Amino acid sequence: MQNFVAYNPVKLFFGKGVTDKLGKNAVKIGKKAFLVYGKGSVVRNGIYDIVKSQLESNGIEVVEYNGIKSNPVVEDVDKASQIALAEGVDFIVAVGGGSVIDSSKIISLTVANNCSAWGIMKGEVRPKKALPIMAVLTLAATGTEMNMFAVLQNHETKEKIGFGHPLVYPKESYLDPAFTLSVPESYTAYGIADLIVHVLESYFGAGEAHLSDKFIYAIIQEAMEAGPELLLDLNDYTLRERIMWAATNALNGLTFYGKENGDWGVHDFGHNLSLLYDIPHGASLTIVLPAWLRIIARKTPERVIQLGKALFNTNNVEETILFVEDMFKKINCPVRLTQVGVSLDKKEEIVTQLNQKQAKGSNYEFTEEERAEMVSLMFS
Amino acid sequence: MQNFVAYNPVKLFFGKGVTDKLGKNAVKIGKKAFLVYGKGSVVRNGIYDIVKSQLESNGIEVVEYNGIKSNPVVEDVDKASQIALAEGVDFIVAVGGGSVIDSSKIISLTVANNCSAWGIMKGEVRPKKALPIMAVLTLAATGTEMNMFAVLQNHETKEKIGFGHPLVYPKESYLDPAFTLSVPESYTAYGIADLIVHVLESYFGAGEAHLSDKFIYAIIQEAMEAGPELLLDLNDYTLRERIMWAATNALNGLTFYGKENGDWGVHDFGHNLSLLYDIPHGASLTIVLPAWLRIIARKTPERVIQLGKALFNTNNVEETILFVEDMFKKINCPVRLTQVGVSLDKKEEIVTQLNQKQAKGSNYEFTEEERAEMVSLMFS
Repeated sequence: MQNFVAYNPVKLFFGKGVTDKLGKNAVKIGKKAFLVYGKGSVVRNGIYDIVKSQLESNGIEVVEYNGIKSNPVVEDVDKASQIALAEGVDFIVAVGGGSVIDSSKIISLTVANNCSAWGIMKGEVRPKKALPIMAVLTLAATGTEMNMFAVLQNHETKEKIGFGHPLVYPKESYLDPAFTLSVPESYTAYGIADLIVHVLESYFGAGEAHLSDKFIYAIIQEAMEAGPELLLDLNDYTLRERIMWAATNALNGLTFYGKENGDWGVHDFGHNLSLLYDIPHGASLTIVLPAWLRIIARKTPERVIQLGKALFNTNNVEETILFVEDMFKKINCPVRLTQVGVSLDKKEEIVTQLNQKQAKGSNYEFTEEERAEMVSLMFS
Repeated sequence: MQNFVAYNPVKLFFGKGVTDKLGKNAVKIGKKAFLVYGKGSVVRNGIYDIVKSQLESNGIEVVEYNGIKSNPVVEDVDKASQIALAEGVDFIVAVGGGSVIDSSKIISLTVANNCSAWGIMKGEVRPKKALPIMAVLTLAATGTEMNMFAVLQNHETKEKIGFGHPLVYPKESYLDPAFTLSVPESYTAYGIADLIVHVLESYFGAGEAHLSDKFIYAIIQEAMEAGPELLLDLNDYTLRERIMWAATNALNGLTFYGKENGDWGVHDFGHNLSLLYDIPHGASLTIVLPAWLRIIARKTPERVIQLGKALFNTNNVEETILFVEDMFKKINCPVRLTQVGVSLDKKEEIVTQLNQKQAKGSNYEFTEEERAEMVSLMFS
């Protein structure tokens, strides 16, 4: 194992009705809240009203920013930060999924350190402080509610990059599975895919960490038990609960302790696809992964076999890859580019983009030929 | 799932040489340390010198208390607290295993709230504050390094009870697996048994929490992979590492999220055996568990079968019980009372004690006949 520090200061409230305490807890954090949310689904499903009335009935002044996009962009963060600065808010209440909470994490740094969002993302500004964040999660997927990471896109530079800093752990996160009952089938599926790929990124990271591997299997098994069932009945609270808690554990540190790193190659390839064709994040991952795994299996067959043994009761590399692909099919996720409307004539464009961006993760090098082969596999 | 709060503020440093930072980190916590340890093994193996020189070379004044017993007693805590109060220490550095760290947790409360240890343990005093604790772990077993619990024994009242309060989470814990290399075979084995029983106490708690169940299987599998091997080569650092990290995760909250409670029946029976014959904690658990499981299997066969399926690939209750017993044999732990020198003529004495103390956990009632049957099984 690699030396590590296990530390996660997030106070996470889980279960039906947990936001009942949000207002009272908020009073201990600040007086003027910056309520950040997306394009209005939280208004339509009533979660906005619940949170806002929690704050206002406890005497907290509320300033709002809405319109965070589902692939969140740095421009929104800068716009929001200007409002937050002008209004002098003391803390942020992020209501939404990964995009809203990730954006709020960067807003909390740009406001507290009076700097640009891209400066933070690119590591050009070293943040010294942050506004506290209360997160109300409405989508089970990214794990942002219990970690220190954020991913943002920059339209100008055509980049989508990740950032991490201990200052942006949410102070408190509220996870009411009932708040995810209205998530449509596609995004429910993408969320399940996202959590599975998170733990696989850890699995294919460098370094040996046996217990982390076993936690990875546990999380994938949980997702595969509850996920397909949930897609048959989106109103099942118990299944929503299981997926929500699995998604949190998929990226809260647990599966990374003792490893040198995660690979994040699937995410890098996927981000590039999302940038080109605005493919939802989860869908981009399930399209990339089977193709990526086929290349990776040549580089580390023993690791693929170990996964096959643990999850699918097979010692065979090829079978393992097919089982992984099948796993995504069982949660109704696309596994080929044509399934998201990208036609074969885009092949060259994609290969060029991936090679230009040198798409890869931390642990495995890719030749230009391998990237081209991967793209072929994503169409095959 | 039951509603829950996931919150664990411990900053845990894991790996070879992590105490190199202890002194510098201590400076941020206080100026005068209360160094608490046991009966001298940490002096003999050099860990005491490492920690003391970390503190002193960073200008921290050190006051000491040693002699904490391996079944820690409330009398030591009160004695230590008087010294700590008189000396005006600002924080505690606990160097040892569960007994030292548990005692230090209660010292931190008795000193900060100026009260008796038993008053805290029995819930008669409500603590308002605590001295910060830095824990340096030298034995992989109880998980105290990353939780808010302590167990103490009271010779006068012949009780051994547990206590929990968020104030006693260690502020920082230092886990260098090399510090456990000198732990003898018996205590290495008891530590492995302890961690396995911790997750089984959660498993047999009330409430359905699927992911927690899967984490329980993961931890037991890890212990069963690394444990028997470690007992063949006590100097294997990598195996020490695996057992140390498994023990921490066995009782840091992870396996309890979403459950109503843990059962803790095996511990209750085991504590009573330890009180009567001074049996080491881990050994008492492995003697109790097979007998306890045989009674429990009548009350909840489906839960036993689920365990058998997950861990031993069997659907059979009887086989599962035998596999569990075999698991303890593989780590050289006793599974009958005669193996720890308690002879059959003590049977009545034990039955009387267990019935007098109404030994049981949170979830399953025991009749006097069932307790007598359990004791017979522990001799059979």
